[in-house]
Amino acid sequence: MMRPSQRAPGQLRNIEIIRRYTRHAEGSVLVKFGDTHVLCTASIDEKVPGFLKGKNQGWLTAEYGMLPRSTGTRMDREAARGKQTGRTQEIQRLIGRSLRAVVNLDLLGERTIQLDCDVIQADGGTRTASITGAFVALHDAVDVLLQKQLIATSPIRDFVAAISVGVYKGTPVLDLDYLEDSDCDTDMNVVMTGSGGFVEIQGTAEGEPFARTEMNAMLDLADSGIRQLIAYQKAALGLA
Amino acid sequence: MMRPSQRAPGQLRNIEIIRRYTRHAEGSVLVKFGDTHVLCTASIDEKVPGFLKGKNQGWLTAEYGMLPRSTGTRMDREAARGKQTGRTQEIQRLIGRSLRAVVNLDLLGERTIQLDCDVIQADGGTRTASITGAFVALHDAVDVLLQKQLIATSPIRDFVAAISVGVYKGTPVLDLDYLEDSDCDTDMNVVMTGSGGFVEIQGTAEGEPFARTEMNAMLDLADSGIRQLIAYQKAALGLA
Amino acid sequence: MMRPSQRAPGQLRNIEIIRRYTRHAEGSVLVKFGDTHVLCTASIDEKVPGFLKGKNQGWLTAEYGMLPRSTGTRMDREAARGKQTGRTQEIQRLIGRSLRAVVNLDLLGERTIQLDCDVIQADGGTRTASITGAFVALHDAVDVLLQKQLIATSPIRDFVAAISVGVYKGTPVLDLDYLEDSDCDTDMNVVMTGSGGFVEIQGTAEGEPFARTEMNAMLDLADSGIRQLIAYQKAALGLA
Amino acid sequence: MMRPSQRAPGQLRNIEIIRRYTRHAEGSVLVKFGDTHVLCTASIDEKVPGFLKGKNQGWLTAEYGMLPRSTGTRMDREAARGKQTGRTQEIQRLIGRSLRAVVNLDLLGERTIQLDCDVIQADGGTRTASITGAFVALHDAVDVLLQKQLIATSPIRDFVAAISVGVYKGTPVLDLDYLEDSDCDTDMNVVMTGSGGFVEIQGTAEGEPFARTEMNAMLDLADSGIRQLIAYQKAALGLA
Amino acid sequence: MMRPSQRAPGQLRNIEIIRRYTRHAEGSVLVKFGDTHVLCTASIDEKVPGFLKGKNQGWLTAEYGMLPRSTGTRMDREAARGKQTGRTQEIQRLIGRSLRAVVNLDLLGERTIQLDCDVIQADGGTRTASITGAFVALHDAVDVLLQKQLIATSPIRDFVAAISVGVYKGTPVLDLDYLEDSDCDTDMNVVMTGSGGFVEIQGTAEGEPFARTEMNAMLDLADSGIRQLIAYQKAALGLA
Amino acid sequence: MMRPSQRAPGQLRNIEIIRRYTRHAEGSVLVKFGDTHVLCTASIDEKVPGFLKGKNQGWLTAEYGMLPRSTGTRMDREAARGKQTGRTQEIQRLIGRSLRAVVNLDLLGERTIQLDCDVIQADGGTRTASITGAFVALHDAVDVLLQKQLIATSPIRDFVAAISVGVYKGTPVLDLDYLEDSDCDTDMNVVMTGSGGFVEIQGTAEGEPFARTEMNAMLDLADSGIRQLIAYQKAALGLA
Repeated sequence: MMRPSQRAPGQLRNIEIIRRYTRHAEGSVLVKFGDTHVLCTASIDEKVPGFLKGKNQGWLTAEYGMLPRSTGTRMDREAARGKQTGRTQEIQRLIGRSLRAVVNLDLLGERTIQLDCDVIQADGGTRTASITGAFVALHDAVDVLLQKQLIATSPIRDFVAAISVGVYKGTPVLDLDYLEDSDCDTDMNVVMTGSGGFVEIQGTAEGEPFARTEMNAMLDLADSGIRQLIAYQKAALGLA
Repeated sequence: MMRPSQRAPGQLRNIEIIRRYTRHAEGSVLVKFGDTHVLCTASIDEKVPGFLKGKNQGWLTAEYGMLPRSTGTRMDREAARGKQTGRTQEIQRLIGRSLRAVVNLDLLGERTIQLDCDVIQADGGTRTASITGAFVALHDAVDVLLQKQLIATSPIRDFVAAISVGVYKGTPVLDLDYLEDSDCDTDMNVVMTGSGGFVEIQGTAEGEPFARTEMNAMLDLADSGIRQLIAYQKAALGLA
Repeated sequence: MMRPSQRAPGQLRNIEIIRRYTRHAEGSVLVKFGDTHVLCTASIDEKVPGFLKGKNQGWLTAEYGMLPRSTGTRMDREAARGKQTGRTQEIQRLIGRSLRAVVNLDLLGERTIQLDCDVIQADGGTRTASITGAFVALHDAVDVLLQKQLIATSPIRDFVAAISVGVYKGTPVLDLDYLEDSDCDTDMNVVMTGSGGFVEIQGTAEGEPFARTEMNAMLDLADSGIRQLIAYQKAALGLA
Repeated sequence: MMRPSQRAPGQLRNIEIIRRYTRHAEGSVLVKFGDTHVLCTASIDEKVPGFLKGKNQGWLTAEYGMLPRSTGTRMDREAARGKQTGRTQEIQRLIGRSLRAVVNLDLLGERTIQLDCDVIQADGGTRTASITGAFVALHDAVDVLLQKQLIATSPIRDFVAAISVGVYKGTPVLDLDYLEDSDCDTDMNVVMTGSGGFVEIQGTAEGEPFARTEMNAMLDLADSGIRQLIAYQKAALGLA
Repeated sequence: MMRPSQRAPGQLRNIEIIRRYTRHAEGSVLVKFGDTHVLCTASIDEKVPGFLKGKNQGWLTAEYGMLPRSTGTRMDREAARGKQTGRTQEIQRLIGRSLRAVVNLDLLGERTIQLDCDVIQADGGTRTASITGAFVALHDAVDVLLQKQLIATSPIRDFVAAISVGVYKGTPVLDLDYLEDSDCDTDMNVVMTGSGGFVEIQGTAEGEPFARTEMNAMLDLADSGIRQLIAYQKAALGLA
Repeated sequence: MMRPSQRAPGQLRNIEIIRRYTRHAEGSVLVKFGDTHVLCTASIDEKVPGFLKGKNQGWLTAEYGMLPRSTGTRMDREAARGKQTGRTQEIQRLIGRSLRAVVNLDLLGERTIQLDCDVIQADGGTRTASITGAFVALHDAVDVLLQKQLIATSPIRDFVAAISVGVYKGTPVLDLDYLEDSDCDTDMNVVMTGSGGFVEIQGTAEGEPFARTEMNAMLDLADSGIRQLIAYQKAALGLA
C-alpha cells in the first residue's frame, strides 16, 4: 500500500504553528497541517452568556468557518445563504468541547474566551488542525489575562490536540489529507490531552463497517500523532 | 456503585418496539428504551435529491425532532424559533449515516426513503433509540416496496442498532438514562451492525478524559447491548 | 346521502381523551377524534411575556405542529424549512384565543401556561381536537398550581370545546373526517363554552357560497356536538 | 348606546373607491372605509405556481401589508424583521380565498393574478376594506385581459365584498372603526357575494362569549352592509 | 439631444410636497418628483437604541420600501421573501446618514425619530425624493416636539435635499426619470444642505467611465437642482 | 497637521500584492494596504445566473466578508447571525460593479467569475483594498481561461483600482487608515480605471458637509493614488 501523499502510515504531514499571525486578537495562530491552513484566533470578552451570569465562572466557545474558495470547488458562503450547515455546527461544537475539557472555567473569572477557526485553505483534517491551533491561541490569550493580572492562575489544566486516523485500502493511516480521506473506508477523529486521556473519539465507517482490531490500530496511531502535535505546540509556545 | 436506575452495569432498560403505530407511513414504529419514547416513521418518496438525479440510485435521509415538552423543562419549538439547533442537526446526520451504512442505495431505485424520528418523551438515549427504531421502520418500508414489486431485491444488507455506554462514578455502564447521563464522566454512542462491525463511535469526556482501558470496557458493553437490541428488532419483525 | 364514514349526519367520531399520556408535562393529554390523534401538553412557566411584566396577571398561549408523516403524504418539517406556515400560525392563534376565553388571567398570577398541540396522526379536524384536548391538559396544569398552593382559586371559568361542521353533498354534517372535508362545500369550525356561548366561528365556502339556512343547520349540529364533547371532557376529568 | 363614531348601529362609514390610483398595475384601487385607506393593486403574471403547471388553469393569490406608520403607534416593518406576522398571513389567506370564491380559475388561462393590499392608513376594518377594494382591482385587471383578447370570457362569476360587524356595549353594530373595535365584545368579519351567499364568516368573542341571537342580529347587519358595498363597487366600475 | 421626458437638461420634473398626508404620524409627507411618489412619515419613539442608552443624546434612523406594484413589473414583497435586498438597505442607510447630517442629536433628547419612506409609485429617483420628502416630515415631527415643549431648541441645523444627475447620450442632465436612468451612462445621486455643502455624492458609471469634466458639469446641475428643491421644501413648510 | 500614521497627505500606505496565495482558486491574491490584509480569490463557474441563461454572455459577481477578529473588537460572525449586514452588502455590490465596469461580459462566454474578498486583518480601507486586489485575482482567472483556450480574447478592457480619500483635520489626505478614518470629517472612496475614468465615487460627510474645493482636492489625491496602485498591479502581474 502506498499513500497518495507518499507518507508512511504513521507519518504526520508537515506541521507549522505560527503565533501572532494577525495583530488584533489576544491569540492569533496560523496552523498548517500540510496544505490545510487554518487561522485560529482567541478573543477575550468581559461577559458571559446569560445562563452563566452571576455564577462566578467563565465560558469558552468556538466558531468555525471555511472561506468559500478554501476548497477545490467553491462552496456557498454561509453568511450569504443565511445559515451554517450542520457540518459547520458539528465541528464548532466539537472544538468548543475539546478545549473546555482542559480549561478550569472557575479560574477564568466571569469572562468568555471566543475561539474562531477560519479555514484559509483546505486539504482534509480542518477540524483537527483547528483544535490543535486553537489551543495555542487560547494559551496566548490566557497569557494576556495573566500579564494584565486579570487572573492569578492559569485555568489551562493540560495540553490538548487532535488528529485524524483512518483505514486506507486496508491499512490504518495517520493524518489523512483530502485525497486519502475521499477514498478511505473509515475516518476517525481523536482528541487527546497531554497526559494521554481521550477527550473525543468520533469514528465513522464511510464504506464497510470497521472491526475492533482496526479500531485498536487506529488508536495506536492517534496516540503517537497526538504526542508529536503536542511537542509542536510546546515548541511554538517556547515551552519545549 | 449503584446506578440511579438500579440496573446492573450491563443491563439495558426495558425495550419495546411497536410496529404500525400510526397508519399513514410506509413504516411506523414506536420504540421505547425505558421512559424514552420515539416515534420513527419511514416515508417513500419517488424522487431523489438533485445531486443524484439520473444516477439510477436511491437515497436515504433522516430528520429528528423533540416535542417541546418531551423533556422535564419545556424546550423552545424549533419551528417557531426558525431554525434547528446544532444538536438536532448533529443527531439527524448521525441517524442518516448509520442507516445508509446498511443499505445498498443502488438496489433502491431512484427514490428516497425519509426517516423521521420524533421524540414523544425523553429520558436519555434519544439518538440511540431513534437509530434502533428507525431501522425497523425502514425494514417495513422496504417490505412495502417489495410487495408492490417496485424493487426485486431488498437493499438492506444487515441489521443496525445503537446504544449508549458511559463511565458512571468510575464504572462502565450500558444504556444511560437521563439521570445517569447528567452525572457521568464519559458518554459514548456506538452504532454497530448485525455482523458486529462498527458503523459509528462517538465518545465524549464530559468531565475527566477517559483511558484506553475504560474505552475497551465500554466497547465490550456496547457489543453486548447491540446484540440484544438486534434480537429485539428481529423479534418485532417476526424474523427471530 | 351516505357519509364516507357511514356516520349519521349529526354523529361524532369515536372520542377518546387520555390523561397523563407523557410524564414530564403538568398536563398531558392524548385526544382522539377517530383517526385524528393529537398530543396536548400544558407547561407552566413562572414568567410572563415582556408586555405583561409587572401587571400582576398571567398569560396563556399555544403552539401547534404536525409530525411530518402524520398525514397521507409526508409534509416538510417546519423546523427544517425554517418557518411555520400561515396555516400553522392561524391554528395556534385560534387555540390560544379559544382557551383564553375561559380563563381569568388575573387569577393565574404572573406565570404563563403554554399549550403544545402536536398532531401524531391526522384525519381531519386537528384544530378542533387540539382545542378540546388542550382544555383538559390546561385543567390538569391548573390543578397542579392549586395543589402546590401557588394559586388559591382556579382561573378556569367554563369548559370550552370545538367541533367542525360542514355541508357535504348538500347535507349539513358534524365532525368531518379528511375524506369528507376534502369533498365538502362548506367547512366551519365552531368553538363554544360549557354554557353554550360562541367563542369562535370560522366558516369557509370551499365551493359554492352557503346560505343562511345552511348556516343555521350547521350551528345546530355544532351545538349538539360541543355538548357531547364537554361531557367527554368531564368524564375524563372525573367531574361528570 | 352612542357609538364613538356617532353613527347609527347599521350605518357604514363614508366609502370611497378610487380606480387607477397608481399607473403601473393592471388594476389599482384606493379604497376608503372612513379613515381606513388601502391601496389594492392587481398584477397579471403569465405564469402559474408549480403545483398548477400544465393544468390549463389560472391562479389568484393575495398579499397584505401595513405601512409601518399606518397606525397610531409605529409597527415594526415586516421586511426588516424578516418575517410576516401570523396576523398578516391570516389576512392575506382570507383575501385570496374570498376572491377565488367568485373566480372561475379555468377561464383565466395559465396565468396568475396577484393582489396586493397595502394599508396606507388604518382605522379598523383593514381586511374588509382590502377584500372590497381588491375585487374592483381584480375586475380592472380582468378587463385588461379581455381587451387584449387574452381571454374570451370573464372568469368573474359574481361580486364579492366584506364588512365587519360586532357587539358594542351590548348593541350589534356595523363596520367598526378602531375605537369601537378596541372596546367591543365580539368582532365578526363577513364576506358575501352579490347573490347573497356567505363566502367566509369569522367571528371572535373578545370578551364574553356571544349568543345565537346576537349572531343573527350581526348577520342581518352584515347582509345590509354588503349590499351597500356592492352598490359602491358597481358605481365605481360604471356598472350601476 | 432630446431627453425622453422632453425636459431641458437642467430642468426638474414637477415637484409636489404634500404635508399631513396621513393622520397618525408626527410628520407625514407625500412627495412627488413627477411620477415618482413616496410617502415619508416621521415617528417619534421615546427610546434610543442600546448603544446610546444613558448618553443623553437622540437618534434618527430611516427605513425604505417599495410597494410590490409601484414598478412596471411587480417585485417580490420583501416581507414575504423574509429579507430586504442589498439595494433597499443601501438606500435606507443613505437616507438616515443624509438626515443625521443636519440634525444635532444632542438637542433631540433621549428619543428616536424614525423615518419611513415607502414608494407608492416609482419612476426613477426614489431615493432622492425620499430624502427630500423625509426632511419635511422630520421638520414637522420636530415641530411637534417643540409644541409639546419636550425640547426647547430645534435640533435641525440646516435644510437638506437630494437629486440625481447623469450623463444621458453624452449630455449631463438633471433629475433622471426611469426611462432616462435605464439608458444613461452615468448616474449620480447628490445630497446637499441649504448652505451648499455636500453631504453625500454617489456616482456610478453604468456604461463608460466618466471624466472629471462630466463630473463637474453634473455637480453644477445638482447644485442648481438642490437649490430649487429646498425652495419647494420651504414653500411647503410655509417658511419661504 | 500631522497624520496619525506620520504619512504625507498624498502618501499611500505600504502596498503589497501577493499572487497565488492559496492554491485552489483560479486567482488568489493577498493584498495589503499597510495593516489591512484582504484575501481575494477568483473562481470560475461554468454557469450563469437564471436571468442570463441562453444570452451567450458571462457574469461577474463579488462577495465580501470580514473574519470575526480581523478588527480590534470581535464582530459577530455573519454566518452565525444568519444574515449579512447592510454594510457588507453595500461593499460587495460596489466590488462587483467596479470590476464589471472593465470587463466585456460578452467575451466571457456563458460562465461566471465569482470574486471573494475576505478580510484577514482590518485597518481601514478594506473595500478599496478588496477592489484593487480582486482585479489582480480576476486577471489571473482570465489567464486560466485563455490558457485552457476556453476563450480566445481577454474580456478585460482596462485596469481598475480603488482608494479612499478624506478630509482629516481640515487637510485632504490619501488612503486613510482606521485611526484617521475614525476621526475625519469626510470619507470618499474613488474607483478609477487605468485610462483615468471614474467608475464609482462615494463620498460621505461624517461631520461637517464638504465644499466643492475640498472635493476637487480629494479627487486630485485619488487620481494620483490610483495611478500608483495600478503600477503595483502591473508589477505584480509582470506587466510593468
